[in-house]
Parts: sequence; structure tokens; C-alpha cells
Amino acid sequence: MFLLNGEVAETLSLEDRGLMYGDGLFETIAVRNQQLEFWQRHMQRLHDGCQRLNIPTPDPQRLLAEARQLISGQTIAVLKIIITRGQGGRGYRAPELAQTNPSRVHALYDWPDYPNINQKEGVILRYCRNRLGINVSLAGIKHLNRLEQVLARSEWNDETISEGLMLDSNDYVIEGTMSNLFFVKDGTLLTPDLSNSGVAGIMRDVIQEIAHKNHIPLEIGYYLPADINNADELFISNSLIGIWPVRQLEQQHYPVGPITQKIIAAVNADRITDESHEAI
Amino acid sequence: MFLLNGEVAETLSLEDRGLMYGDGLFETIAVRNQQLEFWQRHMQRLHDGCQRLNIPTPDPQRLLAEARQLISGQTIAVLKIIITRGQGGRGYRAPELAQTNPSRVHALYDWPDYPNINQKEGVILRYCRNRLGINVSLAGIKHLNRLEQVLARSEWNDETISEGLMLDSNDYVIEGTMSNLFFVKDGTLLTPDLSNSGVAGIMRDVIQEIAHKNHIPLEIGYYLPADINNADELFISNSLIGIWPVRQLEQQHYPVGPITQKIIAAVNADRITDESHEAI
Repeated sequence: MFLLNGEVAETLSLEDRGLMYGDGLFETIAVRNQQLEFWQRHMQRLHDGCQRLNIPTPDPQRLLAEARQLISGQTIAVLKIIITRGQGGRGYRAPELAQTNPSRVHALYDWPDYPNINQKEGVILRYCRNRLGINVSLAGIKHLNRLEQVLARSEWNDETISEGLMLDSNDYVIEGTMSNLFFVKDGTLLTPDLSNSGVAGIMRDVIQEIAHKNHIPLEIGYYLPADINNADELFISNSLIGIWPVRQLEQQHYPVGPITQKIIAAVNADRITDESHEAI
Repeated sequence: MFLLNGEVAETLSLEDRGLMYGDGLFETIAVRNQQLEFWQRHMQRLHDGCQRLNIPTPDPQRLLAEARQLISGQTIAVLKIIITRGQGGRGYRAPELAQTNPSRVHALYDWPDYPNINQKEGVILRYCRNRLGINVSLAGIKHLNRLEQVLARSEWNDETISEGLMLDSNDYVIEGTMSNLFFVKDGTLLTPDLSNSGVAGIMRDVIQEIAHKNHIPLEIGYYLPADINNADELFISNSLIGIWPVRQLEQQHYPVGPITQKIIAAVNADRITDESHEAI
């Protein structure tokens, strides 16, 4: 089910720049325990993305009211919000800001039936051949230009493989197709720098704060596959899965280690108590 | 005016992956002299792009029939064709090929009123700060992930500047936001290699063939701004503008030189006689 600018709809104008050029942003939000999980964090990232693309940020209160309207009665679900630059003529040049009317799409999806065992026992990952291009203007934000992820996700059909890791064009490991990557080495938590490419996940932020609160040393940098291979522990994160330990990447095996377990417990607590949630 | 899958339409499904992820391709075709200019070349590039993205290529005869239906009675116009992977659920994973029903959009636009003087006396260009990411899987094809071009085109509003040149993340000059780049040095025609990024324009192909036929030496490579600065002649090309000589790039001035003039004359002849046109 969809809302377009607050009204039930099934279609969008063929003149929308979201279709023409992927000229917009999105957020994927967990709806659970009668809450829009990490709502204010999602709104902050959406605002940052709008600023980066010079799209007027939609009023968060209106987005919230429309979200509540769409998900009314849902106990567990996925809410996706898409913001595009709205309609425009042919050509890359965007309408002037005063003439820009962003489109707001709210979409409701069933909660994906991820096996519970993924978080307990860990998942299997592979490396993707498709790379992430380097673009500092687009790095970090959750924009609609996602062909790199689409191509990378098309590389495997083996249902036992839960995620594929992507390298950038400089051979650094950046993230999964739909998740961020963390690993542990000698008691330090490490995660790739997303200044050049990748999506700065909401759950990635939550995990960084948890590391800080729990005095777990955190390092953000550029890492090669060889660095990941030598990791003591490895896990991936996103707003829907929370955290999945990685028990195998290609031929390398990893334990579900103590730091991963500590962070999983803290994230699962935050998913109930974080101040940035909104009740539905 | 728009056709969606051959029917007059104004909107597209909100579940279309063209909107969700920019998961598709487009062609921009000149309609002139009762012809769809370079039609078969456009269809070939569209086919190449569909193969690269693993989207079933729509039947070119059906695309042609729908194009004729839309542009009936037009003497000069722009036809844009968009092909997306069609509808799909949430998530990057594409539907299996047998379940994929690509969406076909035909859009008709007024011919842009480019000043005639652009081709005769040349235009002014600038360099953009926004860069092109490197991605060999996406380089060359005209896919719908165009935020890099949108951001680059938003860098200037000065109407006297006709185009901005974009560098890749390795500092090589690749192309304009909406055009390909050629330059002349010591009698040789040079154009950037598009193996890592950029769009391989139809007009760029035509120009390469014209150079070959006219025994003008052609070199394809990776060039820095310093190489462009030292050029004897400089021009840009696309399917609508044909060729525009560049008379100024930033503070550097260039003449409308003999090789540029020779190629302009040959392209303008091809735009009437090329075998790949289709009558409307």
C-alpha cells in the first residue's frame, strides 16, 4: 500500500525526476512494538540527504502524520519513505528551489521473514565482483541511484548466502549490498570509512554510540579484504536485521564472539528504549 | 505527452524499479526531417544496456511502432524512450528473468531552442567540481542513475555557459554533463576512454566513423585537464546538438578549427543520409 503526498495512490507522474534520474532519497524504517524505530534518526539522515542534493526537506511532522496514517494497526512491518525532487522537464538541470515540489511516497511492506537463527548463529557472506564508485558528493546518503547494489545483489542466487560485500574502485571493503560492516580485532571494533562511497546506516550510528558508551575502542578507516580475513569477529547491520554475526565469508570462518554478542544485546535493548522512536 | 507500454498515460506504478533504484535505461532521440535520427544505433545501445543490466530487451519493432504513434505529425521534436526493469518488491534483488516485465515509456518533448550561433561560433564551457565515479559495470551505457550529472549541472546558472566538463575520481576529463568531448592536437582527434565511466554517445560513435572515413587519426585515452588546455581545437557532441565547437573553457580560448569544421559538415550530412534512421 502506498501514499503519494498523503493520499492513497498506486502511481506517480511520468515526469517525476525520481524516475527520470533517480533524483531523490529514501529511508527504510522498522515498524515494531507500536513504534517507528529510530524515527528521528531517519529524519535527520533524510534531512542531510536533502541538503546534499539541494531538495527542500519535507516537514517531518507531516511525514510522521502520513506514516501513522499508513501503518495504522500494524504490529510489525516495514515503512519505506521516498522523497524525490518532484516533477521537472527533460534535462539534468533541476527546477529552481522556489519551483521545486518534492514528491513524498510512503510505502508499507510486510516484515521480511528473516530466520531467527541468523542473529544467534550467524550468516554466510560472499564478496561481490561489482564495485562501488567513488563519489564524495553522494557518499553516505541514501539516494535513489542504486544500480551498483542491484547488480551486486544479482551475482548470487544461493539462498544460504545472506549478503555480499562490496569493494570500492580502490579495492577497499566498504559495506554489504544492504548492510554496513563491522569487525573486531584485538578488542577494537572497526568499520569502513564512508566518506568516498557507501550508505551511512542508522544502525551503524547506533552501534558506534553503543561502542562509545561501553568503552569499546572504535576505529573508522579504509580496510582491504586481507584485514577482514584476519578479523576475530565480523558482523553486518541494518535497520531491519539489526545485527547479524558473520560466521563465514568465502572460505574463512569466524566465531560469534563476545564483543559481537555484547553489541547485539545493547542494540536489541536500544530497539526498545531509544529516544528517537516515535509511537504509532 | 507520454506512452506507457504503448498506451497514452501520465503515471507509472509506484512499485516500478525505475523509481525505486533507477533500475533502467534511456535514449534521447532527435526527430527531424521526418526521421527518427540514428534510430538503429539508439536501439543497439539500448540493447547493449539491457544486456549489461540483465533486463530483457524490448522488441525494437514494437518500440518503433510506439514511437511513430507518439510523434505522428511532428516535424522537429525530441523523443525520449525509458526502459525499466518493471515492477518489483522491496529490496535490491531483481525478479527472475522469466518474471521480469520491463516498462516502456515513450515521451515527446519540444525541440530545445539552442541558438544557431552555438554551432557556428562555438560555446563556453566550465569545469564541474562534481566527479564521475568509476564503475566498469555501468560505464558507457545510458542508465537511469544520473545524480552525478544532476549535481554537476546544478553548479552553474550563468546562461552564457553552455556545458560543464566532468572529471572522474582519478582526475581524468571524461565528458560533459550531457555531451561527449573531443579535442584536436597536431592533426589528431582525441576523445576520452569511457571504459571506467561516462556515456558512450551515439554522436560520439558517428564522429569516430567520420574520422575513420576521412583519414583523421583518432586516439582514445585518458586525458588530464592540462592535455585539454593545450588542445588546438575542442568540441562537444550529443544526439540533439550534433556538434558544438568550444571557443572557451574556463580562461582558455580555442578557435573553431579546420578539423572541427570538417567533422561538423560531415555530421550534418549524416544527419540527413545515415542508414540507421527510420522514417516516421
